[in-house]
Amino acid sequence: MEKETVRIEGFSDAVFAIAITLLVLDLHMPEENSVKNSNDLLIFLKNQWPAFLAFFLSFFSIFIMWVNHHKIFKQIYSRNSGIMFANGLILFLVSAVSYPTSLLARFFNGEASSVVVGIYTGTFVLINLAYNLLWFLASRNKTLLRPGISDVAIRKIQNNYLYGFPIYLIALIFSFIVPAVALILILGLWIFWALSSGKIEMGIKKELETEI
Amino acid sequence: MEKETVRIEGFSDAVFAIAITLLVLDLHMPEENSVKNSNDLLIFLKNQWPAFLAFFLSFFSIFIMWVNHHKIFKQIYSRNSGIMFANGLILFLVSAVSYPTSLLARFFNGEASSVVVGIYTGTFVLINLAYNLLWFLASRNKTLLRPGISDVAIRKIQNNYLYGFPIYLIALIFSFIVPAVALILILGLWIFWALSSGKIEMGIKKELETEI
Amino acid sequence: MEKETVRIEGFSDAVFAIAITLLVLDLHMPEENSVKNSNDLLIFLKNQWPAFLAFFLSFFSIFIMWVNHHKIFKQIYSRNSGIMFANGLILFLVSAVSYPTSLLARFFNGEASSVVVGIYTGTFVLINLAYNLLWFLASRNKTLLRPGISDVAIRKIQNNYLYGFPIYLIALIFSFIVPAVALILILGLWIFWALSSGKIEMGIKKELETEI
Amino acid sequence: MEKETVRIEGFSDAVFAIAITLLVLDLHMPEENSVKNSNDLLIFLKNQWPAFLAFFLSFFSIFIMWVNHHKIFKQIYSRNSGIMFANGLILFLVSAVSYPTSLLARFFNGEASSVVVGIYTGTFVLINLAYNLLWFLASRNKTLLRPGISDVAIRKIQNNYLYGFPIYLIALIFSFIVPAVALILILGLWIFWALSSGKIEMGIKKELETEI
Repeated sequence: MEKETVRIEGFSDAVFAIAITLLVLDLHMPEENSVKNSNDLLIFLKNQWPAFLAFFLSFFSIFIMWVNHHKIFKQIYSRNSGIMFANGLILFLVSAVSYPTSLLARFFNGEASSVVVGIYTGTFVLINLAYNLLWFLASRNKTLLRPGISDVAIRKIQNNYLYGFPIYLIALIFSFIVPAVALILILGLWIFWALSSGKIEMGIKKELETEI
Repeated sequence: MEKETVRIEGFSDAVFAIAITLLVLDLHMPEENSVKNSNDLLIFLKNQWPAFLAFFLSFFSIFIMWVNHHKIFKQIYSRNSGIMFANGLILFLVSAVSYPTSLLARFFNGEASSVVVGIYTGTFVLINLAYNLLWFLASRNKTLLRPGISDVAIRKIQNNYLYGFPIYLIALIFSFIVPAVALILILGLWIFWALSSGKIEMGIKKELETEI
Repeated sequence: MEKETVRIEGFSDAVFAIAITLLVLDLHMPEENSVKNSNDLLIFLKNQWPAFLAFFLSFFSIFIMWVNHHKIFKQIYSRNSGIMFANGLILFLVSAVSYPTSLLARFFNGEASSVVVGIYTGTFVLINLAYNLLWFLASRNKTLLRPGISDVAIRKIQNNYLYGFPIYLIALIFSFIVPAVALILILGLWIFWALSSGKIEMGIKKELETEI
Repeated sequence: MEKETVRIEGFSDAVFAIAITLLVLDLHMPEENSVKNSNDLLIFLKNQWPAFLAFFLSFFSIFIMWVNHHKIFKQIYSRNSGIMFANGLILFLVSAVSYPTSLLARFFNGEASSVVVGIYTGTFVLINLAYNLLWFLASRNKTLLRPGISDVAIRKIQNNYLYGFPIYLIALIFSFIVPAVALILILGLWIFWALSSGKIEMGIKKELETEI
C-alpha cells in the first residue's frame, strides 16, 4: 500500500518550520535613543529575560510537537476528511503559538502574570486535545494505518498523548495560583516527552524488525 | 508519462504554508504601559475579537485553498505557460490574503465595516476566478492531464469551482448591505467545500480503481 | 549520472517562496484613529497605489526569477564551489528584493522618486549579473551539466540572460531621467522573459525527444 | 541501509531557509516625513551601513552553516535522541541569529559597540559548540553513520569544526578590545570554511568512488 500522506506531511513540516522560526520576531530591540552606552543595553537585555525564556520554551515546545507529528504520521498511511480536519486544527494552533508567547514575554513580569500564563498553558491544552483527536480519528479505523501495526503500538501512542491532558490541566489551574509552577510543569512534561518518544519509537522499530 | 509538475507543487505548497503562518502577525499586542492589571489585558483581548475571527477565517480559507490546489494538481501532469501564469496568479492572491485580513481585523468594528468586508470578499472572488482559469487552461487540453482521466471527473472539478462564483458575488453584494451576512455566506461555502471535496476525491479514487 | 543538486534546489525554492510571500508585509495599514469612516479608508488605500504596484511588480519579478532558476538547474547536474557561491549570491539578492520594494512603495510619489527607482532597478542589474555568473560558471565545464546537452541549448540560455543586461542598464539610466519609464522597461523585459522562457524550454524538450 | 534522516533534513532546510530570508526584516526604512528629497534618503541609507553589513554577514554565515549541515547529514544515516537534540539546538541558535544581527546593525556605531559584537560573536561560539556536539554524538557510534565511512573522513569533519572553536573564542575576546577585528576574524573563518568544505567533500567523493 502506498503512503497517501506525503504532501500533507510536507505542508505540515513547512508550517511547523515557519512557526518555529517566526518566534524570534517576538524578541524586541531597544529604541536607538534609549541606549547611550553598554550599560543601558545590558540592563535592557536583562529586563527582557521573560522574552528569552518564552522564546526558548516555545521553540522547544514546537520542536517536540513536530517530532510527535512526524511520529504519528509515520503510522498513518491513508487520509480522510477527519484526519485532514484534525491536522488542520493542529497546524492552526501551532501557527498561533507565537501570540501567547508574545503575551507571556511582555506581561509575565507584572500584574497580568497569571492571565498570560493561563492563556499560554491553555493553548497547550488545546493542542493536546487536537493531537488526541487526530490519533483517535486515525486509529479507530485500522485501514488508515500502517499495515501490520500492532494494537500495543496503537495503545502506546494513544497513552502518550492522553497522559499529557491531566498534566496540562493541572498546569492550567496552577497558572492562577503560582504562575511559575505552571511553566515548570509543562517544561517537565516536554522533557518527559522528549525522552519517552525515543522509547516508543524504539519499541515500534523492534516490532518492524520482528515482522521481517 | 512522468509528472512534470512536482517542483511547481513544492513551490506552491511553500507559498501556501508561509502565507497561512504569517497570518498570526496580524494579531496585535497591547502596549506595555496600557496594561496595568489582568483586567486591562482581558478587556484588550475581548476588543480584539474581530482580529481573532479574521485570523481563524483566513487560516481555514487558505487551508481549504491548499487542499483544492493539491486536488487540481493531482490531475495535471504537464505544464505550459498558461498553467504557470494561472498558478502564479493564485499564489499572488493567496500571499496577499493577509492584507485584507488585517483590514478586516482592524476596521470590522466601525464605520468602514462594509468597505473592509467588501475588500475581503472581493479577494475571494478573484481567487475563485483564478482557480477557474487554472482549471479551464488545464482541462481544455487533455494532453496536460492525468492519462485516463474521465470527462465526468473533469466536469465535476469544474463545477466545484464554478458554483463558488455566484455565491462569492452574492457575498460581495451583501458586504455593502449587511456585512456580517457576507462573512457567514463565505464561511458556509468553505464548510461546503471542505465536505464536498472529500466526495469528489472519493469518486476519482473509485475511477482509478476501476481502471486497474 | 545522478543529479547532485536536489537539496540545493529545494533550499533555493524555499528561499524564493519565503521572499515572495514576505512582500505582503510591505503593504501598510492605516492607523486605527486616522480612519473614521469608509471614505477615509478608501482615500488611504488610493494613496497607497505605489505600494500595491511595487508589491505586484516584485511578486512577479521573483516568480519569473524562480522559473528561470528552475530552468537553469534542470541543466546543472553536478556542483562545485563556484556554483554554490553564485547561487548563494542569487539567493542573497532575491531575499533582499523586499527592501528596495519597500523604498519604492514609500518614496515613489515624491522628491526621492529617481533614487528609489534607481536602487530598485540597480538591484535587478545585480541579479542579472548573478544569473549570468551562475550560467557562466556552470557552462564552461560541461561535465557539470546534463549529459547530452547541446551547445545550441547552452548558448540559448546564455543569450537569454545576456540580453537582459543592456536593457536593465538602460532602465537604470532612465531612473534618473524619467523614473516611470524605467519601471515600464523592466516590466516589459519580464513579460518578454515569461513568454520566451516557454519557447526555450520547448526547444530543449524537443532536443530531449530527438535524443531518444 | 535506508537513510532515516530525510524528514529531519527537510525540516532543518526549511528552518535555515526561513531564518536566512527573515534577515531582511532587520533593514529599516526611514520615516516618510523625515525624507524630503533624494539627499535625505541617501544620507539615511549611508548611515544604515552597519545594518547592510550585518545583513550581508549574517546571510552568508547562515548559508555556510546550511552547507555544513548538509555535509554532516550526508554522513548520518540513523538518528537517536542525542542527534535530534543536538540538531534542535543548532536550529534554535540559527533561528535566533537575526536578533544579535539586529543588535549589531543598530548599535555597532556607538558606545555599546563592544557589547553587540560580543553577543554576535558569542552566538557563533555557541553554534560552533552545537555543531561539535552533533558530530561528537553521531560519530561516537559508527552504526549511525553512512556504511563504509572511513575514520579519516570522520576525523576530517571533526577537525573542521574543532578548529573553529579557538578562532571564535579569540574573536570573542577581541570584541571587547577592538570590535572591528572580531568581525574581520569571523569573516575570515567563514571564507576559510567556504573554501575548505569544498576540499573535504572532494576527499569524501574520491573515497566513495574508490569503494566502488
